[in-house]
Amino acid sequence: MSFAVDLAGIRLAHSRIAGVVHRTPVMTSETLDAMSGRRLFLKCENLQKVGAFKYRGASNAVLSLDSESASRGVVTHSSGNHAQALALAAKRRGIPAHVVMPRNAPDVKRRAVEGYGARVVPCDPTLQSREDTAAAVIAETGAAMVPSYDDARVIAGQGTVALELLEQCDGDLDVVVAPLGGGGLLSGIALALRELRPQTLVIGGEPEGADDAARSKSAGMLLGHSPGKPSTIADGLLTTLGTLTWPVVRDVVARVIVVDDDAIRRAMRLLWERTKLVVEPSGAVPLAVVLSDAFRDVPGERVGIVLSGGNVDLDRFRW
Amino acid sequence: MSFAVDLAGIRLAHSRIAGVVHRTPVMTSETLDAMSGRRLFLKCENLQKVGAFKYRGASNAVLSLDSESASRGVVTHSSGNHAQALALAAKRRGIPAHVVMPRNAPDVKRRAVEGYGARVVPCDPTLQSREDTAAAVIAETGAAMVPSYDDARVIAGQGTVALELLEQCDGDLDVVVAPLGGGGLLSGIALALRELRPQTLVIGGEPEGADDAARSKSAGMLLGHSPGKPSTIADGLLTTLGTLTWPVVRDVVARVIVVDDDAIRRAMRLLWERTKLVVEPSGAVPLAVVLSDAFRDVPGERVGIVLSGGNVDLDRFRW
Repeated sequence: MSFAVDLAGIRLAHSRIAGVVHRTPVMTSETLDAMSGRRLFLKCENLQKVGAFKYRGASNAVLSLDSESASRGVVTHSSGNHAQALALAAKRRGIPAHVVMPRNAPDVKRRAVEGYGARVVPCDPTLQSREDTAAAVIAETGAAMVPSYDDARVIAGQGTVALELLEQCDGDLDVVVAPLGGGGLLSGIALALRELRPQTLVIGGEPEGADDAARSKSAGMLLGHSPGKPSTIADGLLTTLGTLTWPVVRDVVARVIVVDDDAIRRAMRLLWERTKLVVEPSGAVPLAVVLSDAFRDVPGERVGIVLSGGNVDLDRFRW
Repeated sequence: MSFAVDLAGIRLAHSRIAGVVHRTPVMTSETLDAMSGRRLFLKCENLQKVGAFKYRGASNAVLSLDSESASRGVVTHSSGNHAQALALAAKRRGIPAHVVMPRNAPDVKRRAVEGYGARVVPCDPTLQSREDTAAAVIAETGAAMVPSYDDARVIAGQGTVALELLEQCDGDLDVVVAPLGGGGLLSGIALALRELRPQTLVIGGEPEGADDAARSKSAGMLLGHSPGKPSTIADGLLTTLGTLTWPVVRDVVARVIVVDDDAIRRAMRLLWERTKLVVEPSGAVPLAVVLSDAFRDVPGERVGIVLSGGNVDLDRFRW
């Protein structure tokens, strides 16, 4: 079966975005190695521009547009890291960006997107209103839609994380663990490694409070959130799988491992304390997975971990 | 006049510790460049082993001992990063370490030192008791004293920061700003650059609540703390200059710039938010200096900043 993108597409994305995204460092920690009993390689996408891997996919999408389409701008609906990523990617190309965002989104998120020069278009906090509002923006401006994950250009961009990580680990990784929300990052990584190094196990880490992918994978069919969910501290992983990412999670990803919010909080704190890196809850999910009981029977010593983002609202702390 | 160490001594220290200390990365931030109107190069000693530059000086001191002295162990009095640094340096060499620490030191600090395998020797919280207790340890064990800053081996070790930083900035820096407590780090940097690149201005950043060096430098004589001080959030910078560091601050360091706790807190938060690096208050002092009014008349575009440590008590935050 054919998936959204292949290795050639991910390589093309990498050459397209090479000049604009950071090649983020890979760090190691003796303490975390001792705690996990593995050798961990931390891919620091929290040090990526806008503080998250999302800038890769957004940049690839923006740079993929021909100049005529590009001139009409881009649009998305998101209040998370993808919104900021698209805003900055558009700014770099010198084209307009419109970000549809619920009226009740935190002020700090709206200001961040506006800070990158994008126009924020308010909508009601429902999926219907988001889609209607985005459609209205498109009708008005002719802007191109750039979804936050269920999009081949975006998935290819996120997959570039795997190209770099594997290279930075001398081509030798037994396992890669990435956070799993909508599945853009995980799918991109899985599709890159599937051709590049098929013996590497690709594992998704999912919060218990938003476990649609784990449930879908074990049921063998695409399921939405169960009642009362999503509810998790990992606010970047609230979305459900899409039509492009689900087949990858089903057929290419080896396993999905679920962790609860306490484990995520502990992993986040460990990262801050031991690696001196500010990592957001969603970005700490892979470490929580590696330290979980469920990970014990995963074979392999060399484990790549994607620290996907570092955008934490620091107002929650007392300074 | 001759100072505690020269460039040759610092180079020797660097070759001695090269295999044990991290060559920490230098990071940049477009946001901080825009805010400061300079090009900033952040030397990430918060990513150093034990989370602080102190591991350089402690390692150099420990590795400088001949094997007979080394076998009798090392001793210091400190409850800060130097204590952990010496403990780990001793452990790496396989020799005993004794750390004299006031009984009222936070539990977390005692446990950290013990975690590195050192023996903690409690004393009363006075300088007299610290010194008496250390002397008793020396009498009993024959251990070698490794002071936290007023020591040529320690100063030479800290000076290796400058060798790496300058190299990582293509040999081209107009200014280097480092935190100033006892002056070990600042002196090492100043003595390295004095020979290596004399046109680079070396500036010390000092908290207003522990401003003995600024006052000493402007008076032209070594002064202690004024009444009611030290009192600052920058708990790594409470000490006063020593007999080896004062002449360097007086004659080689270009300027000492003082910043208050609010400025330190703002700089620390900016670093966490914008660079995703956990930096302790003392380590944020140089950025506070660069963003201060007093820095406006410092000439030069390319400014190196030493993020000296990242050991923050994360219990103060709500997780």
